[in-house]
Amino acid sequence: MRILIVNPNISISVTELIEAEARRAALATTELTVKTAELGVAYIETRAEAAVGAYATLNQLAEHYEGHDAAIVAAFGDPGLAAAREMLPIPVVGLTESSLMSAAQLGGRIGIIAISQRIKAWYEETVVQYGMGSRLCTIRCLDESLSDIATVQQDQEERLIQLCHQAVKEDRADVLIIAGAPLAGLARNVVDQISVPIVDGVSCAVKQAELLAMLAARKASSGSYAQPPSKLCQGLSPALSALIGRELTSE
Amino acid sequence: MRILIVNPNISISVTELIEAEARRAALATTELTVKTAELGVAYIETRAEAAVGAYATLNQLAEHYEGHDAAIVAAFGDPGLAAAREMLPIPVVGLTESSLMSAAQLGGRIGIIAISQRIKAWYEETVVQYGMGSRLCTIRCLDESLSDIATVQQDQEERLIQLCHQAVKEDRADVLIIAGAPLAGLARNVVDQISVPIVDGVSCAVKQAELLAMLAARKASSGSYAQPPSKLCQGLSPALSALIGRELTSE
Amino acid sequence: MRILIVNPNISISVTELIEAEARRAALATTELTVKTAELGVAYIETRAEAAVGAYATLNQLAEHYEGHDAAIVAAFGDPGLAAAREMLPIPVVGLTESSLMSAAQLGGRIGIIAISQRIKAWYEETVVQYGMGSRLCTIRCLDESLSDIATVQQDQEERLIQLCHQAVKEDRADVLIIAGAPLAGLARNVVDQISVPIVDGVSCAVKQAELLAMLAARKASSGSYAQPPSKLCQGLSPALSALIGRELTSE
Amino acid sequence: MRILIVNPNISISVTELIEAEARRAALATTELTVKTAELGVAYIETRAEAAVGAYATLNQLAEHYEGHDAAIVAAFGDPGLAAAREMLPIPVVGLTESSLMSAAQLGGRIGIIAISQRIKAWYEETVVQYGMGSRLCTIRCLDESLSDIATVQQDQEERLIQLCHQAVKEDRADVLIIAGAPLAGLARNVVDQISVPIVDGVSCAVKQAELLAMLAARKASSGSYAQPPSKLCQGLSPALSALIGRELTSE
Amino acid sequence: MRILIVNPNISISVTELIEAEARRAALATTELTVKTAELGVAYIETRAEAAVGAYATLNQLAEHYEGHDAAIVAAFGDPGLAAAREMLPIPVVGLTESSLMSAAQLGGRIGIIAISQRIKAWYEETVVQYGMGSRLCTIRCLDESLSDIATVQQDQEERLIQLCHQAVKEDRADVLIIAGAPLAGLARNVVDQISVPIVDGVSCAVKQAELLAMLAARKASSGSYAQPPSKLCQGLSPALSALIGRELTSE
Amino acid sequence: MRILIVNPNISISVTELIEAEARRAALATTELTVKTAELGVAYIETRAEAAVGAYATLNQLAEHYEGHDAAIVAAFGDPGLAAAREMLPIPVVGLTESSLMSAAQLGGRIGIIAISQRIKAWYEETVVQYGMGSRLCTIRCLDESLSDIATVQQDQEERLIQLCHQAVKEDRADVLIIAGAPLAGLARNVVDQISVPIVDGVSCAVKQAELLAMLAARKASSGSYAQPPSKLCQGLSPALSALIGRELTSE
Repeated sequence: MRILIVNPNISISVTELIEAEARRAALATTELTVKTAELGVAYIETRAEAAVGAYATLNQLAEHYEGHDAAIVAAFGDPGLAAAREMLPIPVVGLTESSLMSAAQLGGRIGIIAISQRIKAWYEETVVQYGMGSRLCTIRCLDESLSDIATVQQDQEERLIQLCHQAVKEDRADVLIIAGAPLAGLARNVVDQISVPIVDGVSCAVKQAELLAMLAARKASSGSYAQPPSKLCQGLSPALSALIGRELTSE
Repeated sequence: MRILIVNPNISISVTELIEAEARRAALATTELTVKTAELGVAYIETRAEAAVGAYATLNQLAEHYEGHDAAIVAAFGDPGLAAAREMLPIPVVGLTESSLMSAAQLGGRIGIIAISQRIKAWYEETVVQYGMGSRLCTIRCLDESLSDIATVQQDQEERLIQLCHQAVKEDRADVLIIAGAPLAGLARNVVDQISVPIVDGVSCAVKQAELLAMLAARKASSGSYAQPPSKLCQGLSPALSALIGRELTSE
Repeated sequence: MRILIVNPNISISVTELIEAEARRAALATTELTVKTAELGVAYIETRAEAAVGAYATLNQLAEHYEGHDAAIVAAFGDPGLAAAREMLPIPVVGLTESSLMSAAQLGGRIGIIAISQRIKAWYEETVVQYGMGSRLCTIRCLDESLSDIATVQQDQEERLIQLCHQAVKEDRADVLIIAGAPLAGLARNVVDQISVPIVDGVSCAVKQAELLAMLAARKASSGSYAQPPSKLCQGLSPALSALIGRELTSE
Repeated sequence: MRILIVNPNISISVTELIEAEARRAALATTELTVKTAELGVAYIETRAEAAVGAYATLNQLAEHYEGHDAAIVAAFGDPGLAAAREMLPIPVVGLTESSLMSAAQLGGRIGIIAISQRIKAWYEETVVQYGMGSRLCTIRCLDESLSDIATVQQDQEERLIQLCHQAVKEDRADVLIIAGAPLAGLARNVVDQISVPIVDGVSCAVKQAELLAMLAARKASSGSYAQPPSKLCQGLSPALSALIGRELTSE
Repeated sequence: MRILIVNPNISISVTELIEAEARRAALATTELTVKTAELGVAYIETRAEAAVGAYATLNQLAEHYEGHDAAIVAAFGDPGLAAAREMLPIPVVGLTESSLMSAAQLGGRIGIIAISQRIKAWYEETVVQYGMGSRLCTIRCLDESLSDIATVQQDQEERLIQLCHQAVKEDRADVLIIAGAPLAGLARNVVDQISVPIVDGVSCAVKQAELLAMLAARKASSGSYAQPPSKLCQGLSPALSALIGRELTSE
Repeated sequence: MRILIVNPNISISVTELIEAEARRAALATTELTVKTAELGVAYIETRAEAAVGAYATLNQLAEHYEGHDAAIVAAFGDPGLAAAREMLPIPVVGLTESSLMSAAQLGGRIGIIAISQRIKAWYEETVVQYGMGSRLCTIRCLDESLSDIATVQQDQEERLIQLCHQAVKEDRADVLIIAGAPLAGLARNVVDQISVPIVDGVSCAVKQAELLAMLAARKASSGSYAQPPSKLCQGLSPALSALIGRELTSE
């Protein structure tokens, strides 16, 4: 099986974290292709950055999806996920969605632990959009500004564990999601210190992507997730316009 | 990996259908133990039958879970699932929940195809209880009384495909779930005739159980899914009272 | 009028509390039959215990309902209520449901006072399942482990009154429900110390059962609360199989 | 026990229907005082008419409540109910609320049968306001304009029964409410022709009022249902200003 | 353009505040007619007072609407708004609704700052009734009893600003509404001290009324906001009965 | 006042329709700048096209917003609206949001009339995302494929009017929104043929933009709609990176 992973952020160091954790989570027989957004910001925290990241992600997916059995949008908040699901002939999953769906099978009230206060609104809106708002009991976030996105989980481990404890005790979380690609792998490292199941976006996404590829569900040819109808477009990469348009110049 | 599957219905013929489909879905290295409820009804359609099935399922799970990495409650409607999740030290999944969580990653509006009108209310309440009510767009059901639960998918294939088409066209389903253990395997057989992705409860549950076992999430030791506190009990099997009670006679 | 009350817990001492409060609440002309679950735990706090309690309750109801005009499932959380409502030809009410419906006619925001932290999730899910989640403003619970379930309302009276005050002041409850059969009667005793209306599960259930019996609403013969269709069953008591099945051996 | 019933419509003929049905429903020992709004319209169908009816009802309640143990706002849609509940020291119930709370204990999905298409929006908003929107499955209404509000249930009996059947078959109602004071008593007359339980606003309100009076719940002295704080007012009847104001002239 | 503004409270001093702020907000070409309720209370805080205020407002609107292009119900909580919208042939807006709809275009989570604790429940229910409950993140209120309703914004300015800061920091409000006619103009005065957009009920209502008048949307002649069907009425002012009834004496 | 309007589609002919209707709706003193997306598709119907349109819109807004008092995202579905609201120091509105907020002040149940079946899911999700899902009663759409997007309202006028009638009669819409820039102006032309108020996305957006500019609400400097924190970015236009990033090369 071959899975394409796209990091919607431009940070190569975060892509490396994602790749390492994805490799650990994947079946031995799963091959991974990992790509980084070519435009955008270092790490997405806001709706504006997510809109840019969505576009960058669609470009990377369009460019590289061929030959793969499934794809992953590898930033929590899933920028461009629904768009990609429409556009591509293979299953596409996202870190938020996959970890929510996995967490939902481990407990009732789901808590999310994240890297910044600013990121909270975007994550919350993403969960609500998936219809899972009633399952979300809390999003607890680091307060301090991050010195280095690549080392946030080492630098802030103690504080992150404390947020987990608060989510369990004060917000009654039955299960926790460690959110955000920069925290990839943390769940594995702290599992013994937390009293409820704790899952990670990257590993959940890899496993759910493998699952969907193995189920071999077909691509929708009708309904709202069928491929967008061909229409005039301009300014898009050849790969993207092959999936969602028909170049204006070809008229 | 070893997975325990319990059929909450007493029908051996349905257990065989479940086992065959589960075997097809499982990884080659996954071992399956399949058990049938020792008390209850031929197939659960109502809240009363589900309450009985839940008790029967908890008994079978308590009796046989040891040595397994995950367990499956193998009737759509998931009788006893939340109870089992509290009680057992291993992950437990159900056909409704697993297929909802898988389907949610394949499209927006989810439709369910089921075997009888009477079963509809129970299925609907189950979906709503999981907080996924806003994702459910329809439950379409066979109208006629079933001549034989074991052969319903052969006997009714044409009508079931018609229900799928109606769910897509009239109810705008983006993805379909073929509900109920007696329909195990149908999704695979009709995939080419339906224009949206179509998933099956048994195969989704097997894959999600494998997924959770591989994530190695720990059992909650606090929160509402920790094991029930030990307390006086009576009339329970030794296996069940070991998990949720302390025999009155042992006082 | 004759009302059957079943305590889904095995505690005789709690059954006595229920009976005493029920007798105080009932019309002089109402006769009460009070039964205790024959299997299960001392007091139900979790989903697993509730699943067992539901089965035990259905058995007692099936065994004893004949000759009664209405029945009561006498544990807060209402284990087996919807199942019993399907199964029996007479109205069946539960402590949570009846007190919610009564409280809803006394104020807007409803608060619940309960005996243990662990019980909270189960109660909350029960309220949400009835579609009354938007009316629930708080569930406040005792923290300490109980020395004796039969005397909890005496032992903890001061703390319970404090929880009521907090629910009113901090959670803006307009009306309170004292939850759980072990607290039967407390509402009556503390009414003068609490600044909002306060109701009790047992007395509400008795009055709502009398009300439904007097309304003489007929049993559904269609829809999802009609009696379950007769089908093959095994391992059930004669009384239970007469209501939801058709013994396998009689085939 | 003494119960005050106020008809928020000005129709004496409807008041007589209400009184007859209330008398049938009440305990032998319950005394009823029945009053008709002194201003307003023949029968309330719209938000504007309900606003006027609410004011008229508050006036009648304020004028006559003394010496009573509970009061009833006797139009479906409950004009002025929440206001009355704040204002009066005795329990107040309404036809919609009481019948919803009774119906909710007889089945899951609740259908309402009503006398005109125009009335539908107001009824629907009332149900949603009580937080019971998820329980409401349909409101089915007569289409034709009414020749005489006092005889609508005789004139339209056949069509009303047909609406009941449609609500059960097409909308999957588990229980029905016959809405509106002009239909008082119909539920009793058609009970044998309808396959699900069927309740009536007037009789439910009488029984729920008796129930609350017998529970002897105290009047809130804090929270949002305490009596309105005394303040300057003008233009109100002495009875009304005694309950919600302090006459400007008395400054 | 001519706009009619009705203060549902009897306080002339508040009417003056409303008029001053409305004048500041209106286009230079907009003429304003400002009326005060002839019956009711000094300022509405409760459901009972709002029911009286609704009736008083409908009377003033009926009496004075002719010759106007739009009308405003000028108390937060919008007493009588939906009724007026049905009844009048011109657009009618309210302070709560207009400020919610404006605020919703400035941010995601909306906070409300209000003058008393008692007023909170009524405001909250109003927001929920408009279907905007998911957008409301907080209602923060003054605690102390007001010495003078006309000078509350001067007397309590510091505390009101503090409530704004808390709504932003603790409740994560993206935008604030200063609620209640007695606070008209405060938003303008404190705009520099608050870190999120802050709007005012009166100015929003004036602008939304102008907007609707300029859109020249027609009055509904069908549906639930068409004028109430003519029917027998009594005890209403000639102006009101012309809009919602047909005098009984004219039969 | 100066308002910037960006058409997220690449169709110049649609931009012309938007500009003409915007000019009709605007105050005489309002100056309009109208821009067309430089990349994307002829008209957006899907999530994928909306994601591309969002990026194109942010680019145009960033490039041209200076010197304007408010901005409009001029495609129904509002691609990039929340992102733009974060990013820009001036108010930004969208066609869906503005028309919903205006329609909500004209009636209860809101219906939307749109140009294609495929567009329905995206519109529906947009409404739900604004928290207005409970107000939406229907989206009715043209079925046939469009021969020319610029003349759809002329070509399909009769069918569009028929959809309006069905939305009123069958779906009980109290107010209608004619959705989509290609239908700009249609509401004005058919107002006399439809029995409920009918509004248009473009004119509502222009009036709401003027309204917000006149209210002079400040830009959030805290909360989730403050400008995104400056951070490393790459591949963005100078205008866009000035608003949401700090070029990587400038490190």
